[in-house]
Amino acid sequence: MAKDSPQLSDVLRCPQAPVDLNNINTGATPQAPGDKEKTLKEFAPMAEELSELQERLFARGCTNPDEARRVLVILQGLDTAGKGGVVRHVFGLVDPQGIHHHSFKAPTDEELKHDFLWRVRKALPGPGMLGVFDRSHYEDVLVARVDNLVEKKVWKERYGLINEFELELAAEGYNIIKCFLHISPDIQKERLQARLDSPAKYWKYDPSDLDTRSKWPDYLAAYNDLLSRCNPDVAPWYIVPSDHKWYRNWAVGRILLETMRSMRLTWPPAGFDVAEEKERLSNA
Amino acid sequence: MAKDSPQLSDVLRCPQAPVDLNNINTGATPQAPGDKEKTLKEFAPMAEELSELQERLFARGCTNPDEARRVLVILQGLDTAGKGGVVRHVFGLVDPQGIHHHSFKAPTDEELKHDFLWRVRKALPGPGMLGVFDRSHYEDVLVARVDNLVEKKVWKERYGLINEFELELAAEGYNIIKCFLHISPDIQKERLQARLDSPAKYWKYDPSDLDTRSKWPDYLAAYNDLLSRCNPDVAPWYIVPSDHKWYRNWAVGRILLETMRSMRLTWPPAGFDVAEEKERLSNA
Repeated sequence: MAKDSPQLSDVLRCPQAPVDLNNINTGATPQAPGDKEKTLKEFAPMAEELSELQERLFARGCTNPDEARRVLVILQGLDTAGKGGVVRHVFGLVDPQGIHHHSFKAPTDEELKHDFLWRVRKALPGPGMLGVFDRSHYEDVLVARVDNLVEKKVWKERYGLINEFELELAAEGYNIIKCFLHISPDIQKERLQARLDSPAKYWKYDPSDLDTRSKWPDYLAAYNDLLSRCNPDVAPWYIVPSDHKWYRNWAVGRILLETMRSMRLTWPPAGFDVAEEKERLSNA
Repeated sequence: MAKDSPQLSDVLRCPQAPVDLNNINTGATPQAPGDKEKTLKEFAPMAEELSELQERLFARGCTNPDEARRVLVILQGLDTAGKGGVVRHVFGLVDPQGIHHHSFKAPTDEELKHDFLWRVRKALPGPGMLGVFDRSHYEDVLVARVDNLVEKKVWKERYGLINEFELELAAEGYNIIKCFLHISPDIQKERLQARLDSPAKYWKYDPSDLDTRSKWPDYLAAYNDLLSRCNPDVAPWYIVPSDHKWYRNWAVGRILLETMRSMRLTWPPAGFDVAEEKERLSNA
């Protein structure tokens, strides 16, 4: 990749204009370092740089929690798009100590008693942490809308509430990265088939996935809307072509790396007198 | 390693008799596959097997949480013994989605209002999770005892309370593994020096580490006691020689692997009619 090629974050950035996912190629591999084999070789150096940046973030969280940044990666996509795969292959590259992972399921009775952002606030990463959400508050304008779980009036208001919420987080020092993992219906069918073909994958299959699949156009319309309506610069969406798992993992890792580079994280200064401590240690 | 050599878990198992850590070699490398280079080569196959076992544990937690097992690894050791290093190099081998990591610091005001196990119960891993504690309730018979944070009568009672607590966890389906990372004072000095020599490591240094260091014999006495008193078969202690980081990481990984093998975790059965779902999918 030439030095002056644009950042992947610019290439995959969701435009700030009405989006039609039907026109976006799920099998593309923009800016990939090469084919699958060549791209997989890029993971080792990416891991090394990501690990150091994550450790700097974490170190700053330890020494000065009040002013520490936090990173929050939100993963969304239809079933089998690869949210779990990204957690394993991208977040698995860095120290588990600094990772805050949260998976959102259907809300519990307790959660339904509160506003839809209540459980999201409780799951936010602490100072210095690299957080990753497998699904998120966006489900509240996806399944809630497609399956009419709430009135239209209610889910319509949520776009504005989500924008306010994310602006608030950004102001508090969160760097938010939202990735929509975009797959084709054919690839989903292949992956569901693979789950039914292997007893080691039965646990990932849920009969309701086929009901969701039958509403593909409704989900795409709901995604088109949220991508268009909740996409400020401080909490940008990236549309990641995800038919190729190797590309998807590399691309999310790369966007994370570019974002963390842009934070210019330095090691925190010593909170003690280094010379004095060296002297104390020599006698200890 | 010959096929009939004893398991590492047997070799490093803390004896169920009075222990004197002063007589246990911190620089030993029992059953290591070879020198540093050769041992590090064992991490890739270990990672592969650990990952599959962890995924089986996790899958069982997803499909049948009420009956799912949980694994809890407790890491203890003096400063610089390598608790954080083990988290990174052993727990970093598997899917972050299935890891529940918790680091115990000095108790907060809120935590001090409750009994000492209150915060520990709140931090326990859920069904199917592989939990790791960096420090634990054992601090309540370590620093609490050495620094007289509570009366002798109080910390003396805690051994029994800890035994009851861990028996209760075992009965609920927790597999508990407790690792004491055993280092020499000389190695600690080297590692503290390294932290003072590199600005990238200042954040790991705390001037109070030297105060703790000055109480080395008191801490060893406190460890001798807890190793002798809280060491049932359902929640065993392992004494891991930890002067060599490569050996320490390999040994904890190996004990975890042997324990998870012994659990005979199988993939959970399908909770649906596979043939019927295949038929539905072919038409979907």
